[in-house]
Amino acid sequence: MEGIYPIIWDGTTLKLLDQRVLPEEERYVECHTLDDVRECIKKMVVRGAPAIGVTAAFGLILAAREFMGDFTRFEEKQGAFSFSKFQAKLKSAGNNLKETRPTAVNLSWGVERIINKSQNLNEASPSLIIRELEQEAKAIFEEDIAVNKKIGEWGAKLIGDNYTVLTHCNAGALATAGYGTALGVIRSAFYQGKKIMVYADETRPFLQGSRLTAWELQKEGIPVSLIVDGAAGYHIHKGDVNCIIVGADRIAANGDVANKIGTYSLAVLAKENNVPFYVAAPLSTVDMSVNSGKEIVVEERDPEEITKLRGLPLSPPGINVKNPAFDITPAYLVTALITECGILYFPNEEKMKQLVPKRR
Amino acid sequence: MEGIYPIIWDGTTLKLLDQRVLPEEERYVECHTLDDVRECIKKMVVRGAPAIGVTAAFGLILAAREFMGDFTRFEEKQGAFSFSKFQAKLKSAGNNLKETRPTAVNLSWGVERIINKSQNLNEASPSLIIRELEQEAKAIFEEDIAVNKKIGEWGAKLIGDNYTVLTHCNAGALATAGYGTALGVIRSAFYQGKKIMVYADETRPFLQGSRLTAWELQKEGIPVSLIVDGAAGYHIHKGDVNCIIVGADRIAANGDVANKIGTYSLAVLAKENNVPFYVAAPLSTVDMSVNSGKEIVVEERDPEEITKLRGLPLSPPGINVKNPAFDITPAYLVTALITECGILYFPNEEKMKQLVPKRR
Repeated sequence: MEGIYPIIWDGTTLKLLDQRVLPEEERYVECHTLDDVRECIKKMVVRGAPAIGVTAAFGLILAAREFMGDFTRFEEKQGAFSFSKFQAKLKSAGNNLKETRPTAVNLSWGVERIINKSQNLNEASPSLIIRELEQEAKAIFEEDIAVNKKIGEWGAKLIGDNYTVLTHCNAGALATAGYGTALGVIRSAFYQGKKIMVYADETRPFLQGSRLTAWELQKEGIPVSLIVDGAAGYHIHKGDVNCIIVGADRIAANGDVANKIGTYSLAVLAKENNVPFYVAAPLSTVDMSVNSGKEIVVEERDPEEITKLRGLPLSPPGINVKNPAFDITPAYLVTALITECGILYFPNEEKMKQLVPKRR
Repeated sequence: MEGIYPIIWDGTTLKLLDQRVLPEEERYVECHTLDDVRECIKKMVVRGAPAIGVTAAFGLILAAREFMGDFTRFEEKQGAFSFSKFQAKLKSAGNNLKETRPTAVNLSWGVERIINKSQNLNEASPSLIIRELEQEAKAIFEEDIAVNKKIGEWGAKLIGDNYTVLTHCNAGALATAGYGTALGVIRSAFYQGKKIMVYADETRPFLQGSRLTAWELQKEGIPVSLIVDGAAGYHIHKGDVNCIIVGADRIAANGDVANKIGTYSLAVLAKENNVPFYVAAPLSTVDMSVNSGKEIVVEERDPEEITKLRGLPLSPPGINVKNPAFDITPAYLVTALITECGILYFPNEEKMKQLVPKRR
């Protein structure tokens, strides 16, 4: 897999591949501050649960540096560095980040890893603290790719030769540090030499399928056909689809899956037509603190995502809109959860409990 | 219902409200020839099965006039009008029209009604033939509105007070001569004083929902919320939807329904969530010559409907696309068929046989 780098950390600046303008432009947005990062997450310059987790971790490094910068100027000479003040600042920055996208749990998870890391550094000098936290953010980045590749290895076992796989949204390199969950599985199967054909739902309103998944697969040479979201049922019913694979933004303790709006419909269509429905996600996506999907907050986004396209109106002025960004797929519709620790068939509360302690 | 006139026949010209540019512009395209009409049907200036049927009928009047015009200029003085030549011309024009959109059966039905009418006119003068055929086309137009209102009356019985109804595509005034099938039912219930809320699927790729249904309902004062196609499942699963009503482009002898791509998914979602799924259509939509949905030709349309929007690219250049315009909903997923002759619950071959002779 060459040439797809959604998140680049150069030691001082976080560069995010602007996913709003792909595939027309490959342009990076540079983040120098916590606020820059917040804006990028909110406006979906970067999107995809794992990618947001990694981005948030680096966002906290930028926040920590901002604080250390203030401190250096005003207090360093007095030796007045206060670790508790620093920690309070870090936590507030973390909360700030968590508010940007309420559904994807990897965001919280990325933030928590950096904050947890800081707990043991109360004796360290400011520069060592920064160095250690930066190390942790980089580790999160590297681990994400490694974890994705493991998910890919496991998942590829479920993909037969000559399979046609349907996917929704973009759970690819662009949604992660750089390999992909659902598309990681497809990638791994393809690298094993299997002939694969992909149906990519265009995924309204943000068009992650037509803009990102189609671009990513085309770049990789994996055959892909773009379809509108409403055509998935037609192809599944016709028998054109061997399996469906999607990513996840949050998985509840009972195995219910929050993912991009439209996922639930696919799961129901899969059940009706006896097609396996797989969810590929790192264990960092599992949130054992929510018992079921009913407790997951579904983010409602700006109506203009639906009523306009690049400023062009698509509907009459003043029209009322509902724009939930995610939906919940009940666990009973999930044939298997593909994680870095293996394949969990028919997830439920019991099985989830055994799985989660395996995560880092 | 005021102010929505998708098809205007002024005695010499057919004016079609250009549904490609609504709701931004209310502009009519004038058709003077058969070719003008063909282009308008093909390019979806006019769309919706019943509206296409009415348009085709008027298209044949224009074709008949073209022929008579030729005749008048070259042969009238020799008294050389040949009825059989005229009929051959009319039939060829009819076949020409039928090829423009293969799925909607009302197109054939409209054409056949004009051709059948001409059968008894072999003794008539050219001007009388034209007058009689024009009368027939006008009758098709008027009957369509009357039939829609009857469908509305029957269907309104299924709509309770405070109902939230989900609909797909546009089966409204714009899809017919002027009242609507699925939206006709909603309209009738609304006129009875029932409080109704409508979820309108935006209906990619042509956006009939956001551009046409939203506009039509907003104009009428019927509360409507626009959603992306992928969000229908979310709202149905949440319990927000009391019933689903759609139109139809062709109904097979066993009750299978061809309708806008995305309809099948809604029917499956309805079944999974115990929500009634209704199809509102005139009996002219029933095609007893096809035994089941499997025999219905599904039109594949231009990939650019998906890859571009008003010339703006939405996906990478050269991407492969599948763009079926319709899908087939098996009869077992249809709670009831709402026709001008009544409500047919759980349609099947036997019941369809009893229903169809009732049509004109």
